[in-house]
Amino acid sequence: MRAYTLSEEEVKSYGKDYNLYSWSVQGKVDPMVVSKAEGIYIYDAKGAKYYDMSSQLVNANIGHGNKKVIEAIKTQAERLAYIAPSYAIDVRSELARRVVEIAPDNMGSVFFTLGGTDANEGAIRIAKLYTKRSKIFSRYRSYHGSTFGSGNLTGEPRRYPSEPGIPGFIKFFDPYIYRAGIDFKSEEEASKYYVDKFREQVIYEGRESVAAVFLETVTGSNGIIIPPKGYLQGIRNVCDEFGILMVCDEVMAGFGRTGEYFACNNWNVKPDIITFAKGITCGYVPLGGILIDKKITAYFKDNVLNTGLTYSAHPISCAAGCATLDVYKEENLLENSKNMGKILGEILESLKDKHKSVGDVRYIGLFSAIELVKDKETREALVPYGMDPEKIMPRILGMLRQKGFLTYSHENMLIVAPPLIIKEDELRAAMKIMDEVLDEVDKMIE
Amino acid sequence: MRAYTLSEEEVKSYGKDYNLYSWSVQGKVDPMVVSKAEGIYIYDAKGAKYYDMSSQLVNANIGHGNKKVIEAIKTQAERLAYIAPSYAIDVRSELARRVVEIAPDNMGSVFFTLGGTDANEGAIRIAKLYTKRSKIFSRYRSYHGSTFGSGNLTGEPRRYPSEPGIPGFIKFFDPYIYRAGIDFKSEEEASKYYVDKFREQVIYEGRESVAAVFLETVTGSNGIIIPPKGYLQGIRNVCDEFGILMVCDEVMAGFGRTGEYFACNNWNVKPDIITFAKGITCGYVPLGGILIDKKITAYFKDNVLNTGLTYSAHPISCAAGCATLDVYKEENLLENSKNMGKILGEILESLKDKHKSVGDVRYIGLFSAIELVKDKETREALVPYGMDPEKIMPRILGMLRQKGFLTYSHENMLIVAPPLIIKEDELRAAMKIMDEVLDEVDKMIE
Repeated sequence: MRAYTLSEEEVKSYGKDYNLYSWSVQGKVDPMVVSKAEGIYIYDAKGAKYYDMSSQLVNANIGHGNKKVIEAIKTQAERLAYIAPSYAIDVRSELARRVVEIAPDNMGSVFFTLGGTDANEGAIRIAKLYTKRSKIFSRYRSYHGSTFGSGNLTGEPRRYPSEPGIPGFIKFFDPYIYRAGIDFKSEEEASKYYVDKFREQVIYEGRESVAAVFLETVTGSNGIIIPPKGYLQGIRNVCDEFGILMVCDEVMAGFGRTGEYFACNNWNVKPDIITFAKGITCGYVPLGGILIDKKITAYFKDNVLNTGLTYSAHPISCAAGCATLDVYKEENLLENSKNMGKILGEILESLKDKHKSVGDVRYIGLFSAIELVKDKETREALVPYGMDPEKIMPRILGMLRQKGFLTYSHENMLIVAPPLIIKEDELRAAMKIMDEVLDEVDKMIE
Repeated sequence: MRAYTLSEEEVKSYGKDYNLYSWSVQGKVDPMVVSKAEGIYIYDAKGAKYYDMSSQLVNANIGHGNKKVIEAIKTQAERLAYIAPSYAIDVRSELARRVVEIAPDNMGSVFFTLGGTDANEGAIRIAKLYTKRSKIFSRYRSYHGSTFGSGNLTGEPRRYPSEPGIPGFIKFFDPYIYRAGIDFKSEEEASKYYVDKFREQVIYEGRESVAAVFLETVTGSNGIIIPPKGYLQGIRNVCDEFGILMVCDEVMAGFGRTGEYFACNNWNVKPDIITFAKGITCGYVPLGGILIDKKITAYFKDNVLNTGLTYSAHPISCAAGCATLDVYKEENLLENSKNMGKILGEILESLKDKHKSVGDVRYIGLFSAIELVKDKETREALVPYGMDPEKIMPRILGMLRQKGFLTYSHENMLIVAPPLIIKEDELRAAMKIMDEVLDEVDKMIE
């Protein structure tokens, strides 16, 4: 079938010689050679088996090797692999209808992209075209992508290579209560504080010049920062007050990750625009998209939607998207995400109680982070922000991997976000490994 | 196999109601419903057959329904549909090696993206990281993508929604000799003029602040503007003089379109960076990439490549890329592009001689444009730049389509860029249609 057969050594050496790896010093990359992925497991070239406890990049929600999605890809490749976005084809129309159907009921239509970064880029264009305003708000400790627009939305160091930045992109602080420096008496009090600060900043930036505010409904890679009660509604209210569009980036949080199709459903808040990617096809083929509400949909009935991509609404991607939506439904993955999420939450709380290196745990559905500290009282992070000269976090990831637990870290945080198909015994077995490794981390700070 | 069966009416109405179409007033979109694509032909829902004379968006170089590429997609979907970019897998390593192998011999490694826009975005980041400079030059009448960075590289109206622009993105004029307003005595004289002007502008912008110059090796959608003899080498020399990186955007021009794997080979010029997409997989699955030369490759051995994408080097895309490269070779498509290109050139010259509405024709390989005018002497464009209130160009496209000839237009230009598998009799038959429609266009300007 294939015109090549590479040994493990060739896969590694060609990879190291010719392929460039994301966010890395290339000379220090030593990639694991993967031979297979099935369900919640990844296998290396020697056949060793690992729990995929981050669903790769929090995208493999339905797990690996799902037969239904693979079949849909194969069928569509035979039927019609590619046709330009200007034509109508069945899978394209069908997926558009289905995505709008499962979205909050104010949504009207969808523009399909290839992934999350171009979804956010498109949302910036749409917000500016619709509002005829130019300023864009987004938050520190957010990640929205690496292209220039979404890179400028991003509120952490992965933005820096996209600077000097775009004029009119403004940052504000998120409700990261664990390190707020304020002793809030309730979630509601925290929400009021952060929403008031946001409103104040909008006013000082010029309330009539702000097109949109972008926020990850639940902040993902930057540490699963969950909005306190009332926060999202508060932001919604400020947006309504000043005619600002509320854009929820659900690239990571969408499609069952938090137990709902869209994370904003957890708080019954209706954004004007939702961007998504990852879970819509779970990475089997690239796909992302921008949901726009009915009033914006109506606007573009009479106005040019001034954006486009050669592979927008790609036929194979749309076919995979339809099949993936079937899988969520048929396998009750939203419910499983909620149920397993409860168990995961209990395990995380017990780890926090037990380990002195665990400062905070945050979780919703199967979306969680463990925040590591040197000292529980002072909350001093295990590694300082943006620096880890002793490579402590990579060492911890290495220990986890050694025991069969794959995930990734961000600053002083470990992400735990397994595929939504995980079963209770698997979850408990994997988290047992985490428990053991945290014993070692405890020793590091003694 | 599929969980849905839509009628033609449903495909159209769901499409119009829920799916958003690129670069369009949504209320005026009336998409053709496509049922099938095979070889150089597209079939609508009623079974009518059309020549695909633009290879869709100048991407379907190997034509539609190629069995080898379809088989590669199906096989890889079964083997391993997705794994994060940080892992090494056979198809990823193999494609990286093969792309570097066919690239100009100064190239060292490749970063895979999803398409052309994110390839250009990555190239901006790489150029800034490597040179530690911030200014970026690109040309008017160029298209590099719709995300913010590549949108700001773009030198035509599709940039405007990405404004206010990014500080330090500078435009210069391209060697569009037909409308230069100067009566050059030779290609070399034109090249000297445009290169000198470029050098002068670089000096006035601050020679040590310029990171890179981006150019489409052959300008694509903006009218197949072909560099005159000596132009690219002249730009190369200015880059060498001031330590500026030369980035050739070969998203459209690469992979056989001009008769070579990379268009820069036609002039034996070696860029520092090449971006590509389209022809690498011909759209069967999304894929793009950034080739960087050996000195930049060496730099990133010791420095962080500060960019990344969830679907970078996607396994199915890489498998399709390997198969597509096989097809170019096994079907001698570079040679066919050259041979059919000669015939196409002769036909275009005869159309220019015959039709008073044809002001200019430009062609290289199977990459060509017909520039329509109201008056051959004054060269007044058939429609003014950025405006077509009487919808003349859409009417011409409609006449072509009516007769079975599908393509797209840009301003006053018609793109002719069929799949590289086209045969002589097919090419002559299709261009006969163009001849007939140009008779009608001649009548319009009488």
